[in-house]
Amino acid sequence: MTPPSILILPGDGIGPEVMAEVRRVIDWFGANRSLNFEVIEDLVGGAAYDEHGTPLTDDTMAKAQAVDAVLLGAVGGPKYDDLDFSVKPERGLLRLRKEMDLFSNLRPAQCFDALADFSSLKRDVVAGLDIMIVRELTSGIYFGEPRGIIEEGNERVGINTQRYTTSEIVRVARSAFELARRRDGKVCSMEKANVMESGILWREEVQKLRDEEYPDIELSHMYADAGAMQLVRWPKQFDVIVTDNLFGDLLSDAAAMLTGSLGMLPSASLGAPMENGMPKALYEPVHGSAPDIAGQGKANPIACILSFAMALRYSFDQGEEADRLEKAVENALADGARTGDLMGPDGGTPLSTSGMGDAILKAL
Amino acid sequence: MTPPSILILPGDGIGPEVMAEVRRVIDWFGANRSLNFEVIEDLVGGAAYDEHGTPLTDDTMAKAQAVDAVLLGAVGGPKYDDLDFSVKPERGLLRLRKEMDLFSNLRPAQCFDALADFSSLKRDVVAGLDIMIVRELTSGIYFGEPRGIIEEGNERVGINTQRYTTSEIVRVARSAFELARRRDGKVCSMEKANVMESGILWREEVQKLRDEEYPDIELSHMYADAGAMQLVRWPKQFDVIVTDNLFGDLLSDAAAMLTGSLGMLPSASLGAPMENGMPKALYEPVHGSAPDIAGQGKANPIACILSFAMALRYSFDQGEEADRLEKAVENALADGARTGDLMGPDGGTPLSTSGMGDAILKAL
Ligand SMILES: CC(C)[C@H](C(=O)O)[C@@H](O)C(=O)O
Ligand SMILES: CC(C)[C@H](C(=O)O)[C@@H](O)C(=O)O
Repeated sequence: MTPPSILILPGDGIGPEVMAEVRRVIDWFGANRSLNFEVIEDLVGGAAYDEHGTPLTDDTMAKAQAVDAVLLGAVGGPKYDDLDFSVKPERGLLRLRKEMDLFSNLRPAQCFDALADFSSLKRDVVAGLDIMIVRELTSGIYFGEPRGIIEEGNERVGINTQRYTTSEIVRVARSAFELARRRDGKVCSMEKANVMESGILWREEVQKLRDEEYPDIELSHMYADAGAMQLVRWPKQFDVIVTDNLFGDLLSDAAAMLTGSLGMLPSASLGAPMENGMPKALYEPVHGSAPDIAGQGKANPIACILSFAMALRYSFDQGEEADRLEKAVENALADGARTGDLMGPDGGTPLSTSGMGDAILKAL
Repeated sequence: MTPPSILILPGDGIGPEVMAEVRRVIDWFGANRSLNFEVIEDLVGGAAYDEHGTPLTDDTMAKAQAVDAVLLGAVGGPKYDDLDFSVKPERGLLRLRKEMDLFSNLRPAQCFDALADFSSLKRDVVAGLDIMIVRELTSGIYFGEPRGIIEEGNERVGINTQRYTTSEIVRVARSAFELARRRDGKVCSMEKANVMESGILWREEVQKLRDEEYPDIELSHMYADAGAMQLVRWPKQFDVIVTDNLFGDLLSDAAAMLTGSLGMLPSASLGAPMENGMPKALYEPVHGSAPDIAGQGKANPIACILSFAMALRYSFDQGEEADRLEKAVENALADGARTGDLMGPDGGTPLSTSGMGDAILKAL
């Protein structure tokens, strides 16, 4: 039997550093748990642009389509700010999402107990928080046509189009309902149905699917602005939140920041099942490329390592091994392992990126 | 000389209750400060729909165009949830904004010291917070065409269009720069230029205006998702934030909630100067119609009263009287005046809506 395959795309900024630690974790599972993977590596984002003049080559795209899972570090950086829109680092990531059709983006916002005091929110508001934001990832205003900047008389006009079809809404809502069944059975859907017709359609289709196929799920609807408020006020009222691509971008980032654990949060982007029954999938940390600390060995690799744990769970059907890895991260933290982003005001010497990798391997 | 004119639109939910207190404040200024206004009142939102079958009659629209300032309470409520999109309560408010061309929506997010502990954020993160969000209010995805729900094969498709022109961006950016000059001279502009062309145009035009006409302003740019994060992490890094209609909707609500003072926050929506040099203007509290407590005399009238203070400042050139009113609110709070939304866990008997009105009149 050929081992399952992984394409690693470290990308830009701190991407390569944190991904190096993931490789060590992957090797550990091969050596100690007989879980072997065929790992290939390639370029994405600014790194791909520097080498090939495009943030994602067709060849890399083909590899991503062929493997069982893609792990991505991060893309972007000030160096690429002035590039033309069509070759910006982000276009590489967006092309992967779109062509792999990864419509369901799972973004857990979890507060690690050892880190609850790092949140800007009061401890009781966030301690124990565990919500899951399901963001639609392949449609909406990110991809809708027409788009662009046109001339009109003396003016320039910037145009983007929000566009959602019934089936696009239904498939991501379904994934949220399925997740909720394995959690607390509650879904809150967010849109702006009071001002956008695409929000009305969203609300109607989500409700219809609930009524027809998920009567056991407790479904509520909230306007996205009220949702942003409620996330700040009392995030524990939520279990699963389902929302569109653009609202999901803002709301999931706000939710991640609430937890005080930004350097810790993984994400999974899932598509339709492949021949083997597992979904097409790309895993990446929620944090960005952090150009300010790139190359200094300061970055926290945990978000990227936990993204691999999500891969174990959702792509390789290794729920127990995923638990094992998540537990090891928790134990390393409980033993006091801290990278710079996790240091309190009382100081101490932070671990380097590989030092945190060591601590997690030890805990494994 | 005819006195300046005000159109009062109490609207739905708690709107009428809180507006009753504003009328008492207006009367106080007439009796004690020789500031007389010609006040007329009319319907908007669900209240207008109930009476006329439309959330804003042409007649009311004409009155709004004719007066010096409009004060609005709140619109919407579950009773109207199933109404057709075109007659929803919100359409009344949106029509006012659009036809009066109120392109610049000023939303202060201020943390009142006496209330800092009501925030879900830590005291040091929010105490003394004073930022101003300037939201574009008459364009973007709220109003862009094409829009609607269409059939395509077996599918329904929901469509909305984000559309910004150079001049729409420039005029709201200008109002943000002008405000910043009277504050700390810092503006942060937020968009998603990494994924939306309308965001690229936004960023370019804002930067160009700064370079050509406001070299004294310190301008930065942030992606809106990062902006949502940073608002949660350390809001005091901001002075003035300028952003589009949809991002402004979410970001200003999140910022308002940060302060713990949601029932306290006013807003002003300003348009082009009228013949007398003052801008067209509509003032409204940031909070909504709060149907759950409507009609019970529990609502906090402060946000609506402070909206009138903004009217004194921006429409009637009475900055000192605005200060006087704001000071009275502060003093009433310092003396312990509290409506139910401002009660700590230790309890006590909350003031009614009119009880809070009494306390503020007394402080005046
Ligand atoms: C990098 C960028 C294109 C991306 C997005 O906007 O989706 C990022 O913010 C994210 O949330 O993954
Ligand atoms: C009531 C609604 C139409 C409105 C909006 O979305 O603009 C409200 O949320 C606001 O922010 O004033």
